[in-house]
Amino acid sequence: MTIIPGGVTAPQGFTAAGIHAGIKAGSSPDKNDLCLIVSEKECAAAATYTLNRVKAAPLYVTMGHLEDGTCRAIVANSGNANACCPYSHEYAERTCAAAAKALGLNKTDLAVASTGVIGVTLNVEAIEAALPALVQKLSASGSHDAATAIMTTDTRSKEVAVQVEIGGKMVTIGAVAKGSGMIHPNMGTMLAFITTDCAITHEMLDRAIRSVVKRTFNRVTVDGDTSTNDMCLIMANSMADNPLIEWKDANYAAFLHALTEVCTHLARAIAADGEGASKLITCDVSGARNEDVAERLAKQVVGSALVKAAMFGADANWGRVICAMGYSKAPFRPEHVNISFRSSAGEVAVCRQGEALPFDEDLAKQVLTQDAVDIVVTLTEGDGCAKCWGCDLTYEYVRINGDYRT
Amino acid sequence: MTIIPGGVTAPQGFTAAGIHAGIKAGSSPDKNDLCLIVSEKECAAAATYTLNRVKAAPLYVTMGHLEDGTCRAIVANSGNANACCPYSHEYAERTCAAAAKALGLNKTDLAVASTGVIGVTLNVEAIEAALPALVQKLSASGSHDAATAIMTTDTRSKEVAVQVEIGGKMVTIGAVAKGSGMIHPNMGTMLAFITTDCAITHEMLDRAIRSVVKRTFNRVTVDGDTSTNDMCLIMANSMADNPLIEWKDANYAAFLHALTEVCTHLARAIAADGEGASKLITCDVSGARNEDVAERLAKQVVGSALVKAAMFGADANWGRVICAMGYSKAPFRPEHVNISFRSSAGEVAVCRQGEALPFDEDLAKQVLTQDAVDIVVTLTEGDGCAKCWGCDLTYEYVRINGDYRT
Repeated sequence: MTIIPGGVTAPQGFTAAGIHAGIKAGSSPDKNDLCLIVSEKECAAAATYTLNRVKAAPLYVTMGHLEDGTCRAIVANSGNANACCPYSHEYAERTCAAAAKALGLNKTDLAVASTGVIGVTLNVEAIEAALPALVQKLSASGSHDAATAIMTTDTRSKEVAVQVEIGGKMVTIGAVAKGSGMIHPNMGTMLAFITTDCAITHEMLDRAIRSVVKRTFNRVTVDGDTSTNDMCLIMANSMADNPLIEWKDANYAAFLHALTEVCTHLARAIAADGEGASKLITCDVSGARNEDVAERLAKQVVGSALVKAAMFGADANWGRVICAMGYSKAPFRPEHVNISFRSSAGEVAVCRQGEALPFDEDLAKQVLTQDAVDIVVTLTEGDGCAKCWGCDLTYEYVRINGDYRT
Repeated sequence: MTIIPGGVTAPQGFTAAGIHAGIKAGSSPDKNDLCLIVSEKECAAAATYTLNRVKAAPLYVTMGHLEDGTCRAIVANSGNANACCPYSHEYAERTCAAAAKALGLNKTDLAVASTGVIGVTLNVEAIEAALPALVQKLSASGSHDAATAIMTTDTRSKEVAVQVEIGGKMVTIGAVAKGSGMIHPNMGTMLAFITTDCAITHEMLDRAIRSVVKRTFNRVTVDGDTSTNDMCLIMANSMADNPLIEWKDANYAAFLHALTEVCTHLARAIAADGEGASKLITCDVSGARNEDVAERLAKQVVGSALVKAAMFGADANWGRVICAMGYSKAPFRPEHVNISFRSSAGEVAVCRQGEALPFDEDLAKQVLTQDAVDIVVTLTEGDGCAKCWGCDLTYEYVRINGDYRT
C-alpha cells in the first residue's frame, strides 16, 4: 500500500469541484463554501452519522437517500449547519434537487451535508444559483477545491489518497475531510467523504466503514462537543475491476487496511488542526484489561481540559493524566500505571506503578515543546491497547469560540 | 432561616485557625496553607468523597477515621494534594498524628484533607512544625483564616453561615469551601467543611449530606475534571440543645432546608470563582421527563466548552445549547425544546419548539454581558427540573492551567 497525491478524485471515475456560493452573509468571495463530488457510475455507499440526539436535517435526508445502499454524488456546504430552523428539511431536499437537476440525476442519487452555525436559516437560493456553475467546474483535479469548500475554522485543508493491490488490480481510495471544533469521539465526528474505485458490496462497505470509523475518527477529541451535523460517507464505484469483495477474505482485509490508513491520516490531521491547537497530542495506552478499556482511558486523557492546558504550557503535570484516567470510569488499578511523555526530542518517564518518579525537568520541557507529543500510558493488566488523538487547549481556542456566530 | 455573618465558627463550640506553614516551596509567607477546625465536643460526622478511581491518601485516612461516625477536628492543607507519592498514606497519617498531639486528642478523632498538585512529595515536616502554633491561634473568629488556608487558584475565600429554629432552639450551620478548577459534577467535587451545633444522629447527618450534595455541589461544573482529592465533610456537635433529630420529621426537614441553603450558596460561589471565570452561568432546565433527565441536560449545557466560550464572548449562540443537550444522552425530543437567556438586564427568547426565533441581538448582548447569566431551557415533556452551575471559558483559564505546576 502506498500513499499517493490527490484526494477524492484519485480513484477512477470521480470528479469534484468547489465554489463560492455566498452562503454565509459577508463571507470572503475567495472562500469556497459549496462542493460536489460525483461518480460517473453508480456507487455502493455507506455512512456513519453523529450520535447527537439533535441531528441536522441533511443527515436525515442523506439517510433516506442512502436507504437503497447506493449513491452517485455528494453535495456539501460550509457556512451554515442547516439545523434547527423551520425549513431545514425542505432546504436540504431542495439542495439535493438542485444538484440532481444540474447533474441530470435523480434527487435520491444525492447525499447532502452541511457544516457551520446552527439555528440560522440556510441561504438555499445561493446554493441553487451556484449549482450549474459548480457542475461546470467538475474535474478530475477538483479534489482540493472540494476540500476547501467544507472548511470552517479549519486552518488547513485535509486530503489523502492511497493505492493498494487487491486481487491483481490496483485499487485507489481517496478522501477529503473537515473538522476543527465540536470534535469528540462518538460516531462520525466531522465531515469525511471517501471515494474508491474498489468493487465491494454495500454490505461489506458498510461493515468496513463502521469498523474503521470506530478506531480512527471516533478516537479524536478536540473539545468534547459532538456536533449535530457530522457524517462520514464512503462511495465505491467498482471501476478498479478487482474481484468483487463480498466476504471477509484476504481482499477485504487488504481493503480494510488501506481504508484504516486513509482514516488514521485524516483523524490525526483533524486533531492537529483542532481549533486553536498548537500541537497534536496522542494518548497511547497499552497493557489495559482490553481494547475498550484502553480506548476509554486514552479518550479521557486527551479530552481533559487540564491535561490539554498543561500540554499547551509544556508542563509535565502527569498528575492530571492519572487523574483523568481515574474519572474515566474505566477499570484499572492506580498502582499498575506507568506514564511517560514522548516526542521527537526523546522520552521521559514520570510515573511508575502509580507513583512519582524523579525526572529531568529540562528534558521534559524539550519533549513537550514539540509539535506532536505522545502521552504514553503503560498498564500491567492485559493486552488492550488504543491510541486517541487530540490537541492542546490554547488562548486561540477561546478566541475562536468566544465569537464564532457573530 | 436567616443568613448570618461568619463561617465554620458561627455554630456554638467550634474554633478554627489558618497559618502559613510553607508547604509549597517558594510560596508567599502571606498565603495561609494549613488550617484546623475543632469542636470542643465530640461530633457526629459524615462525608462524601470524589468518585475518581484515583483517590488521594488523605481521603482513605479520613474514611478510616470516620468509620465510627464521629470526629472532633479537621486538618487541611493547600499547596499539595498528597496524592500518588510513595509516602502519601504515611504522611496523611503523620499529619493527623501531629494535629492530634497538639490538640490532646486521638489520631482517629481527626479528619484530614489536602488540595494542590498531584505527584509531588508533601512537605509533612513543615506541617508538623506548624501545628503547635496553629493550635495556639484557634479562636471563635478563625473561620476566615481557615477559609483562606484551603484556597489554591481561588480568587475569593468562600464562607457562609445560617440560623434556623429547630424544636424551639436556634441551630446554626456554618461552612468554608474551596474549589476553582477540576470541578465537575460527581460526588464531593471540591473541599467543603461544614459545622453545626445541631443535635442529629450520624445516620440522619449522613442521609442529609448525601441528599444535599447531590443537588448542590454535584451540580457544579467548571472544566469536567473530577479531582482525586475532593471531599465534603460535616460535623454536628449537638450544642444547640435541640431535640435530637433521628427521624425524617419536620425538624429534619428544617435542617435539610438550611443545609441546602448553605451548600447552594457555596456551590454558586465555587462556580462563579471557576478558574479564569468572568461570569456565573446557571442552566435552569424545567419540564423535562424527570429530575434526573433535567440534571443531565443542565450539566451538559454548563459543561460544554463551546457554550462556555460563547458565554465568554456574550454570543447568543443557542445552537450550542441544544447541541450540548443532544449529546448528553438524556432523553428528550428537539421539537419540545424552548430556550432563552436571562439576566438582570432582561430575558430574550431564542428558540421555540426546537427552531430559531428571531430576536433582538442588542438586547441579547446586554443580557449576556452581565456577571450572572441564566440559560433557561423549558421542555414540554414532564415536571422534572434542575439547576446546574458553571462559568465561562476564558483566556485566563488557559493561562492558569497552562502553567500551574511549575
